[in-house]
Amino acid sequence: MIDADKTISPPVKVLEWVGDAADGRLRLLDQTRLPTNTEFIECRDTQAVWDAIKRLAVRGAPAIGVAAAYGMVIACQYLPDSGDFIPGVEAAAEYLESSRPTAVNLSWAARRIYRFAQDHATGDFAALREAILTEARAIHAEDEAMCMAIGRAAAPLVRQCSGVLTHCNAGALATAGIGTATAGMYIAHAEGHGFTVYCDETRPLLQGSRLTAWELMQAGIDAVVITDNMAAQVMREGKVDMVITGADRIAANGDAANKIGTYGVAILAARHDIPFYVAAPYSTFDMSLPSGDDIPIEQRSSDEITEGFGRRTAPEGVKTYSPAFDVTPAELIRGIITDRGVISPVTADNVAAAVGR
Amino acid sequence: MIDADKTISPPVKVLEWVGDAADGRLRLLDQTRLPTNTEFIECRDTQAVWDAIKRLAVRGAPAIGVAAAYGMVIACQYLPDSGDFIPGVEAAAEYLESSRPTAVNLSWAARRIYRFAQDHATGDFAALREAILTEARAIHAEDEAMCMAIGRAAAPLVRQCSGVLTHCNAGALATAGIGTATAGMYIAHAEGHGFTVYCDETRPLLQGSRLTAWELMQAGIDAVVITDNMAAQVMREGKVDMVITGADRIAANGDAANKIGTYGVAILAARHDIPFYVAAPYSTFDMSLPSGDDIPIEQRSSDEITEGFGRRTAPEGVKTYSPAFDVTPAELIRGIITDRGVISPVTADNVAAAVGR
Repeated sequence: MIDADKTISPPVKVLEWVGDAADGRLRLLDQTRLPTNTEFIECRDTQAVWDAIKRLAVRGAPAIGVAAAYGMVIACQYLPDSGDFIPGVEAAAEYLESSRPTAVNLSWAARRIYRFAQDHATGDFAALREAILTEARAIHAEDEAMCMAIGRAAAPLVRQCSGVLTHCNAGALATAGIGTATAGMYIAHAEGHGFTVYCDETRPLLQGSRLTAWELMQAGIDAVVITDNMAAQVMREGKVDMVITGADRIAANGDAANKIGTYGVAILAARHDIPFYVAAPYSTFDMSLPSGDDIPIEQRSSDEITEGFGRRTAPEGVKTYSPAFDVTPAELIRGIITDRGVISPVTADNVAAAVGR
Repeated sequence: MIDADKTISPPVKVLEWVGDAADGRLRLLDQTRLPTNTEFIECRDTQAVWDAIKRLAVRGAPAIGVAAAYGMVIACQYLPDSGDFIPGVEAAAEYLESSRPTAVNLSWAARRIYRFAQDHATGDFAALREAILTEARAIHAEDEAMCMAIGRAAAPLVRQCSGVLTHCNAGALATAGIGTATAGMYIAHAEGHGFTVYCDETRPLLQGSRLTAWELMQAGIDAVVITDNMAAQVMREGKVDMVITGADRIAANGDAANKIGTYGVAILAARHDIPFYVAAPYSTFDMSLPSGDDIPIEQRSSDEITEGFGRRTAPEGVKTYSPAFDVTPAELIRGIITDRGVISPVTADNVAAAVGR
């Protein structure tokens, strides 16, 4: 067991505020260039933050939340020292939210900054900008602590496994810390437990092979990439003792929206009697949604399927269907590992007890 | 209903013997160049046929069988007019079989030519080569007829569906005719039935998006490409009334080996109460195997996963796990659609009754 006050560093700095409130900037790792290039984007206006979120240069619910908080700091740099400041902060929140409609953390962080600005508005706009940056830094630090708390809850489960399967990237790259689905892996690894992580490559954008395998390898964890359609066979061969995925949004009954394919993995896990866990901070819960049926599913563009990686792999003019997310029903989830402990069994009552109504 | 004696032409000529027995050649469509290029390979020695089978330029159990038959004709062109001829035919059969160990049709066709040569050996080697070509052409014609027979059995099922899902390519491109999994689609379409076919793209080699969608589009059938991990969501949305896949090898109890991912699709179909059918000629049955547990699973090379789309999409040095096939247990298969009718329910007794012990 690692010490209770110890924090494990993520394998790479995903996002960082550089400079002061008045003219600083947000430096983001450009995750679209991984795994072959490690490059950073300097965001100096909200359009750049919006674009980075939209095109998945920064992705993962928690990291998007932190990016949005810093995006709000940047927005404030352009607002006038006048009564238009607070309405401008609200407009910036709405603008940033529009980049990923299903990302509840984005909305949560942007709204938190907006409310903070409302509550702390005085005539001193320079001081207000400083205070807003401090609040954004607090969101960042809370994110790191959230990852550690999830990891401490998940590590005892991971320590029982020789093989873990994960889908997409709910890793360090998706947060400001050691990730959500990966947090227990990083802690169990730091504690000396040896195990293999099967990473679904996660079409269409290959976050599993490009990102999850990359970050686990940075930490020295044994990562094995499989295509999405190999998961059933790998499970059948007894190589997987546990599945852990992230979530983008969780309804009040525990139904969890996550990257397309998660629902299928949960069905396959159930068939093979493998426990399927979701790891996510409590801020991922949207208690206004009674069930997953109320979660809107974006459609993504056709070319991600037909020419996702440099060359065309489907006929010209072919139709595609490309839901970005799916919803895993609570009945298929053994537990939801949160920064407030593990919710299991996953019922509306247990969710309400952990998260609050 | 189409006339009983009518044959539907496939959308493209997949393989063709050009010339005579003494110095003819096998012309193969190079399916690795689809869907952007329509190019043909001229095979003038058995090495070329072996390579074409190995690298999937020709693929699909029935087409591989026909290619192997013509490959045997080519082998005979190089054999001496002596007592070494028949042993040379046997060696050619063994050589061609080594290109795809799980492809039972390959072995079946090569051995059939070998036995034919044994049975028809006289002192007249030129006549024997002619007779062997005639036998290979018979295998070719039987394959076209096999596809039509499967299609006639499948079409009544397809006509009840507005959405059909298929995995990989068990299409016209996998046979010398209108395919196996696709045969009922082509016939139902020719009969005027309108429906949509969801094509799993089928990683790692993308046979679904490159091949199945392409050939269905050539015929004017409504094809929609999805990534493999979208199948569960598409089923959940009620878009799929039936799944039909091919099979590479079927055990005596009905367990069916097919392209990796098929087993997962069968589990997803069961979860959504969607009937899952396998379409395959009776020659796909290997009655020497009591169950699917006895079917060997090839591992394919890592770079198909890590750089399958023309550029690297996984970290340098990452591990992969890449089973080429999986086995769908008979209990998940509603019926096996053969050229001798539909086997349903799928039990060892029903398989034996249809195929023979």
